[in-house]
Amino acid sequence: MPDLPPSPAPAAQADAAERPKPGDTYVQSFARGLAVIRSFSAEAPTQTLTEVATRTGLTRAGARRILLTLEGLGYVEAQGRQFRLTPKILDLGFAYLSSLPLWNLAEPVMETLVAEVKESCSAAVLDGAELVYVLRVPTHKIMRINLGIGSRLPAFCTSMGRVLLAGLPPEEARARLASRERLPWTSRTVVELEALVALVEETRRQGWCLVNQELEEGLVSLAAPIVDRTGRTIAALNISGQANRTPPAVMVERFLPLLLQASRDIARLLQFKT
Amino acid sequence: MPDLPPSPAPAAQADAAERPKPGDTYVQSFARGLAVIRSFSAEAPTQTLTEVATRTGLTRAGARRILLTLEGLGYVEAQGRQFRLTPKILDLGFAYLSSLPLWNLAEPVMETLVAEVKESCSAAVLDGAELVYVLRVPTHKIMRINLGIGSRLPAFCTSMGRVLLAGLPPEEARARLASRERLPWTSRTVVELEALVALVEETRRQGWCLVNQELEEGLVSLAAPIVDRTGRTIAALNISGQANRTPPAVMVERFLPLLLQASRDIARLLQFKT
Repeated sequence: MPDLPPSPAPAAQADAAERPKPGDTYVQSFARGLAVIRSFSAEAPTQTLTEVATRTGLTRAGARRILLTLEGLGYVEAQGRQFRLTPKILDLGFAYLSSLPLWNLAEPVMETLVAEVKESCSAAVLDGAELVYVLRVPTHKIMRINLGIGSRLPAFCTSMGRVLLAGLPPEEARARLASRERLPWTSRTVVELEALVALVEETRRQGWCLVNQELEEGLVSLAAPIVDRTGRTIAALNISGQANRTPPAVMVERFLPLLLQASRDIARLLQFKT
Repeated sequence: MPDLPPSPAPAAQADAAERPKPGDTYVQSFARGLAVIRSFSAEAPTQTLTEVATRTGLTRAGARRILLTLEGLGYVEAQGRQFRLTPKILDLGFAYLSSLPLWNLAEPVMETLVAEVKESCSAAVLDGAELVYVLRVPTHKIMRINLGIGSRLPAFCTSMGRVLLAGLPPEEARARLASRERLPWTSRTVVELEALVALVEETRRQGWCLVNQELEEGLVSLAAPIVDRTGRTIAALNISGQANRTPPAVMVERFLPLLLQASRDIARLLQFKT
């Protein structure tokens, strides 16, 4: 990605008069065409004209016009009265987007989250007893934590680390915790094995983790797992903030729902990846 | 899947007068909208209005109208003068993939196969003279960029392509082979039409296909068909390996029985689908 201005500028806002309106015939037609494509699913792999009309809320004539257009363009094929999508549909951005590293998909979701919470957001994966940052979307605040992609931190004293450990079978999580010397990073750092095992267990049960100044004085971090379609935790997503600006209770109340939604959004995008 | 007639019957041919014509404004507009989506790629992940117009052959005004429509619908986002696709685009491809009966069923079988053979496994369908990847289980589940879902390869020089061609009536397979220029990808690539027809015939007879370094030096690939309950080939399944690690003879001896079993297992699972 080229460097872009920090604030998303609406495209070509100069001449708003030229902008297509929602009521615009062309916009409507195009939206309907895409809606017809989206009306096919596991429940409706093939559909008749009537079924497409019912699912999309189009008239039969409208649905017919779109289906035949899609057929003419090779995106739909008909066998008798049944229509179905063709693999050409994958040329519509899917082949390209799905070839991107996973994190390119996560990035827009994380950018939205950062815009909402005004705090930095990161994603990390587990490697042994350490987490490795794979993506980071900073806020544009002056004070920011300088952890680049590929940076590592011990799993035991970070919210993403505990979330990633919670995604492992309990015995495996315990073994990884035990495999490394655990030094206190602050006066609050929990280092005792059984206490950590309990914290990981709590994280597993509640589906998220908050770590309050165990890595760095003043730093509070909230993390949630990103799961693949089999339910396996493949990464963790976090928001970190300053304790004096956003106390732990406020983080849980205000940020947790947004963080959980973002991790679900990313998980859904990942379903389409191998 | 409902039972469908083997030969694709044009939809609703009764009243051809109602069929959208290529010159039809709506058809043209819709085709142009889809062309704009397709103009984004790994080479052009973000584009300005001018670049989109150039790539699609549209006027700037036309390209602008479509980009703003796509932006309004959430399929494109603008940052300054740069446009890019959003992950929402994946919904279109997902509509196709989830409508494939084998998509969810095949994956666990493929994962078992990968665990046994320690090589990557893919599934593909045919589109014209090309195969399109619809599912891929890599050996190492680490996120990596390789052949993603929606990637295309020519059918003539790939094991899955020859298996898929062998699933067509012989004259149709020949026509598809003949429809495209066939360039050698390696020094071993068979490009001559009659030789390829014979190879497809052999594939049909034996029920599987091995391609030895015709697509890429060092790459050996073994494929088998996945058939529906009417016996029609609906997809191909393959294992690919490195020639120096797993010579062709070893692939046939060790992997072929497992591959054939996996494709039968998937076919059997498909029978229980509606």
